Amino acid sequence: MTQLHQEIVGIDAAIFMHPTTWKASGHVDAFNDPLIDNKDSKKRYRADVLIEDYCEKYLQKANKEVEKARKRFGESFDEDMYRKTNPRVLGYLEKATEPTARLASLLEKEDLAGVKALIEELEIKCPVSGSMNWTDVRQFNLMFGTKLGASADTATDLYLRPETAQGIFVNFLNVQKTGRMKIPFGIAQTGKAFRNEIVARQFIFRQREFEQMEMQYFVKPGTELEWFEIWKERRMAWHQSLGIDQSNYRFHDHEKLAHYANAATDIEFDFPFGFKELEGIHSRTDFDLKAHEEHSGKKLQFFDHEENKSYVPYVIETSIGLDRMFLAVFSNALQDEVLEDGSERTVLKIPAVLAPVKAAVLPLLKKDGLPEIAQEIIDDLKWTMNVQYDEKDAIGRRYRRADANGTPFCITIDHDTKEDKAVTVRNRDTMTQERVAIADLKSYLEPKVAMSEWLKKI
Amino acid sequence: MTQLHQEIVGIDAAIFMHPTTWKASGHVDAFNDPLIDNKDSKKRYRADVLIEDYCEKYLQKANKEVEKARKRFGESFDEDMYRKTNPRVLGYLEKATEPTARLASLLEKEDLAGVKALIEELEIKCPVSGSMNWTDVRQFNLMFGTKLGASADTATDLYLRPETAQGIFVNFLNVQKTGRMKIPFGIAQTGKAFRNEIVARQFIFRQREFEQMEMQYFVKPGTELEWFEIWKERRMAWHQSLGIDQSNYRFHDHEKLAHYANAATDIEFDFPFGFKELEGIHSRTDFDLKAHEEHSGKKLQFFDHEENKSYVPYVIETSIGLDRMFLAVFSNALQDEVLEDGSERTVLKIPAVLAPVKAAVLPLLKKDGLPEIAQEIIDDLKWTMNVQYDEKDAIGRRYRRADANGTPFCITIDHDTKEDKAVTVRNRDTMTQERVAIADLKSYLEPKVAMSEWLKKI
Repeated sequence: MTQLHQEIVGIDAAIFMHPTTWKASGHVDAFNDPLIDNKDSKKRYRADVLIEDYCEKYLQKANKEVEKARKRFGESFDEDMYRKTNPRVLGYLEKATEPTARLASLLEKEDLAGVKALIEELEIKCPVSGSMNWTDVRQFNLMFGTKLGASADTATDLYLRPETAQGIFVNFLNVQKTGRMKIPFGIAQTGKAFRNEIVARQFIFRQREFEQMEMQYFVKPGTELEWFEIWKERRMAWHQSLGIDQSNYRFHDHEKLAHYANAATDIEFDFPFGFKELEGIHSRTDFDLKAHEEHSGKKLQFFDHEENKSYVPYVIETSIGLDRMFLAVFSNALQDEVLEDGSERTVLKIPAVLAPVKAAVLPLLKKDGLPEIAQEIIDDLKWTMNVQYDEKDAIGRRYRRADANGTPFCITIDHDTKEDKAVTVRNRDTMTQERVAIADLKSYLEPKVAMSEWLKKI
Repeated sequence: MTQLHQEIVGIDAAIFMHPTTWKASGHVDAFNDPLIDNKDSKKRYRADVLIEDYCEKYLQKANKEVEKARKRFGESFDEDMYRKTNPRVLGYLEKATEPTARLASLLEKEDLAGVKALIEELEIKCPVSGSMNWTDVRQFNLMFGTKLGASADTATDLYLRPETAQGIFVNFLNVQKTGRMKIPFGIAQTGKAFRNEIVARQFIFRQREFEQMEMQYFVKPGTELEWFEIWKERRMAWHQSLGIDQSNYRFHDHEKLAHYANAATDIEFDFPFGFKELEGIHSRTDFDLKAHEEHSGKKLQFFDHEENKSYVPYVIETSIGLDRMFLAVFSNALQDEVLEDGSERTVLKIPAVLAPVKAAVLPLLKKDGLPEIAQEIIDDLKWTMNVQYDEKDAIGRRYRRADANGTPFCITIDHDTKEDKAVTVRNRDTMTQERVAIADLKSYLEPKVAMSEWLKKI
């Protein structure tokens, strides 16, 4: 963000902020999940997830029914027609969609008794006890609380930030004035955020402690939808520049918008458990800055010299989880390949620019001065890229190890190296080998692995 | 740490860890401050700080007495003799040292009633109410607590980590095995830590939320004191490489060691409020790993192939606060200078390698194609270093602005630039100017500002 865009600057805001911040942002009153307990198993569930799981089950049943029919009818099968006319499929699909719509409407009206009634009507059972002996549904705030100060009577309630965005909003004017920023400009931040999730699952997809990477872009009111489209494009281009197959990404525009947004989309990634949100791009209007103005009594306005007036900027937000990004890259990269000779290898095809180790430096033998040459190569490369020395086991096993930890290049020093002052460079993905002069090694590797070279291409 | 040392790797451990971690580390039972309240003002104090402030006051009185005598006696004054013989100075010095020693002994015996009695004996008054109407002294745990889970009856007590070190200890074997590390090796980490300090003061020196930079170095038992000396030297060399005057640093060896240490020193820095700890270097023995072995029931041992046996490694720790490091650099850098012509400038002499903006790019005028040339220079440099464009105000004001925000170089594009394809580069500290060809700009600046060039010199 900050390297690609001169008008975007970085910040590191606090995890503990003044409690009023979270009142202003709406998190104290509305950052809730609806919970329900089963009285027999004593297990607690998100009421909305119980209903969504119920719907998902019927969606699976419908799909199974369609697949059975496809096998039965062979090539002449018209899936679309079958879905629209087969009574059993239609029944399943209705059960898969109708409760979701009712749930959304109940939650919008904050009708928690209605949510419980829906669970009972659908005869949803506790997966552990198998009973329908449910408590009432109640709202549970997702923020982690703590106390500042030494005793119960004088302590101040604090929350751990559930998102990094508010740290940018409350610092907006400090950054604008000290950085002499002109609209449009952005503030970017990477940092921990915390949510007391009831259901943390799907590997590291949903965690209670996670790392956000957010950018808030401040624009002139009325131009926000243009900027929203620009940021949709820019972010998708960024993702697609990584070299992961583009069929793994798609947009999912929000139909139902949050109260603070006038446009919103997700970039979804095809995780091992299906397409899920990887990044959110939201047009948040002036909702947040105005709320902080109101609660703090301080103006959060930009004086626009061209227009000769002050206004509260509108905000386009791009928000991505570093952990989700890691999971996306990692799950896509891990591959078991059968090679031409019938042998197998495990290879982690992490894009070279993201690989933690860029090159393994491997002396063919532990003697004859080869390790010393390896060390010279490491000393030359290590300021430019992270490299790893490995002298253990046969060269083939070392290649496999480098494949498995995602190292894009292996540099092998052999007995010819002393003569020709060159090494063999093996490519992780193609497994091809090339002879490269030691003197040219850095300039050979750098364009293939360096972040700056990659950024220039976006 | 990780760039200078091939055998040191990085980690990002969690802020929330299993609560037993903090039992094992000793933080649940012993990470306390002794607190006392004044019943009239309702103000709360650290009992030890009250006593230390009392001692400090008498130290100041002794120093004042010595200074008065120096003025009276002139050149013939023998300070050492005066301190040892003048009854008034001796009286002050006794009051400045004797209570500190008694406090240390009382705290070691956990004799909190004795601490209160000492406060009463010294007739220490509340700075707010002026009264001596004190409560009992009691221990207050400095960890911030929170609760994981949705209801009071099922919630788990969690603590926010008060130090990053324990995240390294509990992950020691994971890192050793996956990274195939051999002893000696290190694990380094930068991250937030949290302490519910009663007194957070001296700018950002002591904060409740702060950023630690720690490195734990795992060594063979019996070699730890050699490694302790090596790391003392290495860390001091690192600090002194920054280019800050070396009189600002000193070692302070600990006489009284913590229960887990067999050697400890601080690197102290001369902050605006005196010499204070900037970094701690501790020989922590095998205390932490053994405590985690005991509480987890899992072995945390390294198998040494050369010795053909397993052991729990000993640990040398280097621990520095990023915020303190920032305060040290910042407070040392800020200078008001009177120039030869009598004018004044505010200049932030941040070491170039640490300066957030490496160069300001300044077209002399906003026309005649000069801004376009500036933009070309920015596009060329920005992948290598952070640069800032500034076209507002006369060039002199822009230089002052760059001085004040610590930018080490100003690049000015003037009318000659079109002819000679060169620019003027001004040095923040010397204010000298040099004509540099645009084509040579990157190679001219990079050795002066790049982290890797600096690291190579350590």
